[in-house]
Amino acid sequence: MIKSHIHAITQSIQETSPLVHCITNYVTVESCANALLAIGASPIMSDEVDDVMDITSICNSLVLNIGTLNKNTIAGMKAAGARASELEHAIVLDPVGAGASALRTQTASELLDTLNVKVIRGNMSEVKALAHGARTTKGVDVDPGDVVTDETLRDATCFACGVAQKTQAVVAITGPIDIIADENRAFVLRNGCALQGRITGCGCMLSAMCGAYAARANGDMLLAVVAAVAHMGIAGEIAQARMQSLDGTGSFHTYLMDALSTITADELVEKIKLEEVI
Amino acid sequence: MIKSHIHAITQSIQETSPLVHCITNYVTVESCANALLAIGASPIMSDEVDDVMDITSICNSLVLNIGTLNKNTIAGMKAAGARASELEHAIVLDPVGAGASALRTQTASELLDTLNVKVIRGNMSEVKALAHGARTTKGVDVDPGDVVTDETLRDATCFACGVAQKTQAVVAITGPIDIIADENRAFVLRNGCALQGRITGCGCMLSAMCGAYAARANGDMLLAVVAAVAHMGIAGEIAQARMQSLDGTGSFHTYLMDALSTITADELVEKIKLEEVI
Amino acid sequence: MIKSHIHAITQSIQETSPLVHCITNYVTVESCANALLAIGASPIMSDEVDDVMDITSICNSLVLNIGTLNKNTIAGMKAAGARASELEHAIVLDPVGAGASALRTQTASELLDTLNVKVIRGNMSEVKALAHGARTTKGVDVDPGDVVTDETLRDATCFACGVAQKTQAVVAITGPIDIIADENRAFVLRNGCALQGRITGCGCMLSAMCGAYAARANGDMLLAVVAAVAHMGIAGEIAQARMQSLDGTGSFHTYLMDALSTITADELVEKIKLEEVI
Repeated sequence: MIKSHIHAITQSIQETSPLVHCITNYVTVESCANALLAIGASPIMSDEVDDVMDITSICNSLVLNIGTLNKNTIAGMKAAGARASELEHAIVLDPVGAGASALRTQTASELLDTLNVKVIRGNMSEVKALAHGARTTKGVDVDPGDVVTDETLRDATCFACGVAQKTQAVVAITGPIDIIADENRAFVLRNGCALQGRITGCGCMLSAMCGAYAARANGDMLLAVVAAVAHMGIAGEIAQARMQSLDGTGSFHTYLMDALSTITADELVEKIKLEEVI
Repeated sequence: MIKSHIHAITQSIQETSPLVHCITNYVTVESCANALLAIGASPIMSDEVDDVMDITSICNSLVLNIGTLNKNTIAGMKAAGARASELEHAIVLDPVGAGASALRTQTASELLDTLNVKVIRGNMSEVKALAHGARTTKGVDVDPGDVVTDETLRDATCFACGVAQKTQAVVAITGPIDIIADENRAFVLRNGCALQGRITGCGCMLSAMCGAYAARANGDMLLAVVAAVAHMGIAGEIAQARMQSLDGTGSFHTYLMDALSTITADELVEKIKLEEVI
Repeated sequence: MIKSHIHAITQSIQETSPLVHCITNYVTVESCANALLAIGASPIMSDEVDDVMDITSICNSLVLNIGTLNKNTIAGMKAAGARASELEHAIVLDPVGAGASALRTQTASELLDTLNVKVIRGNMSEVKALAHGARTTKGVDVDPGDVVTDETLRDATCFACGVAQKTQAVVAITGPIDIIADENRAFVLRNGCALQGRITGCGCMLSAMCGAYAARANGDMLLAVVAAVAHMGIAGEIAQARMQSLDGTGSFHTYLMDALSTITADELVEKIKLEEVI
């Protein structure tokens, strides 16, 4: 039942190619566009306040990623977000580096408070910063003390559900162990590989993919996000399995994109390592 | 005669390395720079209004791509365009997403009206938006109803020649079948492969390459653009032929850049699938 | 003694993962982030004036690259630079395209005059523009007449030491032959390969890497920069050795990143081609 729903959403993206409006950082933006194309969706990037309302109106969802925000793109995010909320498009928020600067923490909070955000995707330090203003000292990476382990999984899951309840969004806290929760249910995913932390953009690409999956959620946003996180994690496993002598992070990036573009819905439900924990 | 001209232009880029000033979107900009280097040209990116006049003065051509335009880059495009027009440098316009927002349609039209644009490179939906303000609903991709087929080729070619006449620019409408026209002549190219639509940047890279080819047109801008479009299409075919089991869009991107950088002028004229239709 | 110091710095990056704040151009920014991750460091990109002070405060060094500067990022560079100077973080300046426009030359000079810049990394034309306002006509590439050869090496080394004395920074002038100098000593490195000039970003990636090495200099900034330059050069050699039939600049980029991420400190000191010339 869960797997058939995940299967259906994944296939639906490949068949109907949702258009995803991304206002995202300039570091990983090409990878985000390519990740969306790889999974069968269509990306469009636009951040100018005079452009975003027209663009978001023809799209199916909106992804807001604050990785390299500035005054102009914040204005663009607000305008696009207001219009997308009006049109009831799913909005995904990636609070990159929340906790690392006041501007990032405040901007993420403000977007969350004022827009109809349906999905929050970040690492544990970023979600903690969103939830109660915690400061982080590792920049855009998770603080070592925040990494979810089997020991802390129970508490982390409760925390995720609490944030979901407060924000009325699906919360995806990703890392070696991924937690995806809404206010009632929580799933744990154990797909993925360590090399994903050695290249830039795995989080950003995943947030962009959440935009495509959210656009085809068909009434179950939680499972749509689970499917997106699984798609990225399984792609990481397939990519790692191809690594040969002399290969490093460059080849891994290529293999990861390859896998994103070749995984079928059948393969996704076959390889998913999913537990429902609440 | 046609092929020997195409051969000469291609070789001339490799031998004389024209300097191409690009004001282009931040999504595919690294690929654009690498595509220019791959074919033997030199890229320089600069969009700040206080920087562009000096930069464009030392360059051989200017490429204006509105993929992620904003107020600052529009000002940069106008200033650079005015200076390039003054210096009689070839200007290439890529109206990315024209028709998807009023700002994009208006900006592209204004650049076309005020600058000495020599080449327009876009998909059919974008060129239609430029020509008569048509709206598109597929963002930066061509609307399915606008894709050129053998059935619509005659009409599409007439349309391209009409736009060329009105704008006094060479018009390249690219897709599965490419049309390259000036007011008197039109060519059809049938190189390329479907995977080119599955990665971001093939259109942007091609527009950047048009900047290099236009800088070495040696009196025949139409054939220079034909050569650029053929270079990209043949690279796509070579890249697709290398695809193996497990390869996807990541490897395809790498193979495409490989092919762009290794195709010789001899290979280009040997593999070109060119018809003169008018 | 020299080699053991280089070994220690390289290993220290892999073990302690310094956090490097980059304000860099949007052309090669993803490659810069990936290069830092590849060598074991952590990148964070932030250029908004309201964001940079918080960000740079949690970092270990700051890299300022003027490749696509604009009014906003210049303000960000000044604010970040002032804070980093205060905190005595190492600052690396990459004067991309200095000499190609007045804005670039002036901005680079102003940053150099007002901030506590510890490392300057550029090609010979850019460093000449910084030192005495020379104009260049090749954009972001070195002017052919400025390329360091065995014939000009002695003069070039004296010039580098002179700039180092005047600026109190370590000066790295890179190209086919690399010169790294402070006011008292100068080293020449002969690692690297020609293909590094056929892709965009080798200079930018190296400057970012200098940020990581400078953060772990442990009292010898000159050797830290030598180690960074050697790391890039040796990676280029390893990448070139993997090139096969049909491979071009796309594969080379991948192999280069692979090598950056897999070179060990042992391998680095084994393959370094280093001469102390003064």
